[in-house]
Amino acid sequence: MNYPVKAFQELVDNLHKLPGIGPKTAERLSLFILGMDPEEARKISDAIGKLHERVKRCPVCFNLSDGGECPVCLDEKRDHSVVLVVEEAKDVLAIERAGSFSGVYHVIGGTIRLASGIGPEKLNIDGLIARVRNGGIKEIILATNLTHEGNLTAMYIKKELDGIDVEISRIASGIPIGTELEFADGVTLTESIKGRVHLTKE
Amino acid sequence: MNYPVKAFQELVDNLHKLPGIGPKTAERLSLFILGMDPEEARKISDAIGKLHERVKRCPVCFNLSDGGECPVCLDEKRDHSVVLVVEEAKDVLAIERAGSFSGVYHVIGGTIRLASGIGPEKLNIDGLIARVRNGGIKEIILATNLTHEGNLTAMYIKKELDGIDVEISRIASGIPIGTELEFADGVTLTESIKGRVHLTKE
Repeated sequence: MNYPVKAFQELVDNLHKLPGIGPKTAERLSLFILGMDPEEARKISDAIGKLHERVKRCPVCFNLSDGGECPVCLDEKRDHSVVLVVEEAKDVLAIERAGSFSGVYHVIGGTIRLASGIGPEKLNIDGLIARVRNGGIKEIILATNLTHEGNLTAMYIKKELDGIDVEISRIASGIPIGTELEFADGVTLTESIKGRVHLTKE
Repeated sequence: MNYPVKAFQELVDNLHKLPGIGPKTAERLSLFILGMDPEEARKISDAIGKLHERVKRCPVCFNLSDGGECPVCLDEKRDHSVVLVVEEAKDVLAIERAGSFSGVYHVIGGTIRLASGIGPEKLNIDGLIARVRNGGIKEIILATNLTHEGNLTAMYIKKELDGIDVEISRIASGIPIGTELEFADGVTLTESIKGRVHLTKE
């Protein structure tokens, strides 16, 4: 749809760039913003406009921070000897939301994708190796995504850590909790059987 | 969910104010914006920030405009003798999208809601009456919403136009096209039977 009013058209077009925002939703949001108190609309604009300059990266784990170390790294109650390695900061948010992990993180910033020119040197892997070499870390949990690239990147990191005295683990793959077997894909089913956990008799 | 990074929290909270944007969607959009090219993010921010100052109202019909008369009022190919009266500019967008109306509009800016202190003097009704008195208008189509307030407002406008030589009509209420009768509400069914259209035998 083309709108006769340029500023309105621009907002619809810009909102339409966001994921999950179709043309109709973009129009509905634009009309809502137009109907808002201008001061409230200005707050949304400012929050977007200042995001990039105000959100920093933690110098230790590359998680989101206000500047300086992130709250997880600063938290003395967490177990700093267990480091969970993820691809992106959003993975940290997802795990923190689950609320069951008490160690710390390392965000590598993506996966190795040689075809797209992303080699390991473009990720925060050297920082991870240096962090482990510095000592005090007992276990590295590789929690990159369970995709082809995530697996390759995990294997690359495992190889880089060879010879350093640290336990290395990979998060388990298998059937999601609550899933019926008939709906699981074949690869997951196969992995789930290969990775079966033996139950000891009591 | 509370986020440890203030600027991120602010964006999530602000996006969550928009209709249909729940906390999870607000987080997903915020992460997406954080991952965008900063220049692209700035464009979204600007589009929101400048919306209120750049979107004006047409001095003739109060539809959205860039300043001066709106494109519909300026369009000489449209029938300026037929004026369709709607509550809000978004109604104009909906009717223009349907693409079958060739007259012009008058946006009154809401409905009379005495309980909320909105009397007819707060709406663009005087402008409509003056426009009709100026001459050149043959028909006024009252297209306020088919709600209690919309109906009352339409009736008020009809009364105000009493004694002026202009045809006045109200959009038809009834069963939406494509609806099965069993799913229509009782009031609509009753109105649809009362407002039945007689079919002439050929």
